[in-house]
Amino acid sequence: MADVSTASGGVPTLAEIARTAGVSTPTVSKVLNGRADVAPGTRARVEDLLREHGYRRKRGGAQSSKLFDLVFHELESAWAMEVIRGVENVARREGMSIVLSESAGRLTPGQTWVDGVLARRPSGVVLVLSDLDEAQRAQLTSRDIPFVVLDPAGDPADGVPAVGANNWLGGLTATRHLIELGHRRIAMVGGPSRMMCSRARVDGYRSALETAGIGVDPALVREGNFHHEAGYAAGRELLALPDRPTAVFAGNDLQALGVYEAARELGLRIPDELSVVGFDDLPLARWVGPPLTTVRQPLVEMAETATQLALDLGRGRPPAATRVDLATTLVVRNSTAPPPGR
Amino acid sequence: MADVSTASGGVPTLAEIARTAGVSTPTVSKVLNGRADVAPGTRARVEDLLREHGYRRKRGGAQSSKLFDLVFHELESAWAMEVIRGVENVARREGMSIVLSESAGRLTPGQTWVDGVLARRPSGVVLVLSDLDEAQRAQLTSRDIPFVVLDPAGDPADGVPAVGANNWLGGLTATRHLIELGHRRIAMVGGPSRMMCSRARVDGYRSALETAGIGVDPALVREGNFHHEAGYAAGRELLALPDRPTAVFAGNDLQALGVYEAARELGLRIPDELSVVGFDDLPLARWVGPPLTTVRQPLVEMAETATQLALDLGRGRPPAATRVDLATTLVVRNSTAPPPGR
Repeated sequence: MADVSTASGGVPTLAEIARTAGVSTPTVSKVLNGRADVAPGTRARVEDLLREHGYRRKRGGAQSSKLFDLVFHELESAWAMEVIRGVENVARREGMSIVLSESAGRLTPGQTWVDGVLARRPSGVVLVLSDLDEAQRAQLTSRDIPFVVLDPAGDPADGVPAVGANNWLGGLTATRHLIELGHRRIAMVGGPSRMMCSRARVDGYRSALETAGIGVDPALVREGNFHHEAGYAAGRELLALPDRPTAVFAGNDLQALGVYEAARELGLRIPDELSVVGFDDLPLARWVGPPLTTVRQPLVEMAETATQLALDLGRGRPPAATRVDLATTLVVRNSTAPPPGR
Repeated sequence: MADVSTASGGVPTLAEIARTAGVSTPTVSKVLNGRADVAPGTRARVEDLLREHGYRRKRGGAQSSKLFDLVFHELESAWAMEVIRGVENVARREGMSIVLSESAGRLTPGQTWVDGVLARRPSGVVLVLSDLDEAQRAQLTSRDIPFVVLDPAGDPADGVPAVGANNWLGGLTATRHLIELGHRRIAMVGGPSRMMCSRARVDGYRSALETAGIGVDPALVREGNFHHEAGYAAGRELLALPDRPTAVFAGNDLQALGVYEAARELGLRIPDELSVVGFDDLPLARWVGPPLTTVRQPLVEMAETATQLALDLGRGRPPAATRVDLATTLVVRNSTAPPPGR
């Protein structure tokens, strides 16, 4: 660690950082503001010093930006619009505009994005299913730009402020609903097992069955990605079993619609001959036929909470908890009924 | 008009504007940059002079922003995500981030938004189903910030660069498809008649029927808003007619799903007993049962075109046309078939 002598013995000033780095104070200022006109070597040296000494710029009222950054892993996701609406609800109330970026499939946004953020100094950042690497976190922290991960996948990095949903509870509630209707052969189409939210939903399903004294039949548990096609493929397999399930709990709404299609092709009526439960409660769940019973993941509220959390952190009002999971709830519509013969 | 004496006799410089307004040049500069610290009266006087004299700030390379503004009338719209993806495709290629705003139901964005735009100086603005008033247009023009209206509603203001879709052609194509299948009793559920896109779709429907020698039966033409509920209500009425239609062309996909629900309640099978065509081709059209035959409105491409048009205008590369309609195309899936008994 470079030795910076500080007047106070604590966190060094800009001038002290500049002196140690052997550059002028305006150059350190340029680095802080994400300006491009600083040599890469100088920039790296200054960034290192800022990080090592835990430098934190003070934000004044006049400096506070009317922008708020929202970064998606991918915008394709069926629920991206719900998240945007939640962030927009808070931003509008605060008189802010949202800066929207997509990390284009990378798990962390690129350096171009970081440079842009340092230059525009948003009041906060929410990252959806995306995360910052350690250097990026240090860069934002030294500029006092607060960030929160909105993490419906349920697997945030340690110590990073994050808002999620209680996926396990959702799996439990959905399966209990089917058990209470009288189902015993209940199948599950899970999402990818590398995503913690998928695992939590499947675990909730298992716990519901086990606490009801119903064993888990491995033949009834399938895994697929979160798309319609995966639900269709799993649905075809499950419904072709000699002792086929009377109910299917799908890992999300799109998979549930894939199961609908498989049932339709086989001439099985929903809910009379097959019950189906989804997960997410996307707007389309109300519009399909029959309207889908599903676990509501409160995406708008989660996005609002994440945005508010970032703003609170930026205003020096640290909340009670920086890792929050909102509850999921079951929405009963017309795709579930007692099994045939009951 | 205040008299500004200019050295050249042409467009005045900032200093000349300042002298006429009786303020300093930095004050004119502050107004141009949307800074809040200028008295309202002064600001109005400077804006008037800028407008009257057609002042246009020059944009340099160093000044060009890495931001692009996108304004929605309302984010609730089912196709907002498609539009965001289109704008993002172009923005990402250009290394830009999108600033997203919602005019919150107002037809024009508020002054807060305009102030923000003047301060951040985006490379361009796309407004969706939203428009600028004359003063706002003048403000953006004097700062050389180009704007384009993305107007699926098909009714842009005169002279404003706009990108839309050929709604009339979509109505014609959808109806001809049904006629070719053998249908003669073809109903239409139109959108609100105050929206030009609704009118164009209904007019295309009429022209298809008339050119095929089939008269338009007014009892088969209904009007409703663009939501699921309106399609359901119109569907219930149409399917209760003594001589009910064998096919329904809905003004958009959500209305079509409302017609699906009405048919389901009456025990009518789609497409065997009733054919249904939608409009938009939202992602969900593929996922419903049966998958929906619909007119594809190329929203992603429309948004890409609008964004590129704004960037071209800003770079002094005016395109051949500033009012562009992209073609709609019919996507045939499983909700249409010959009428019963054929």
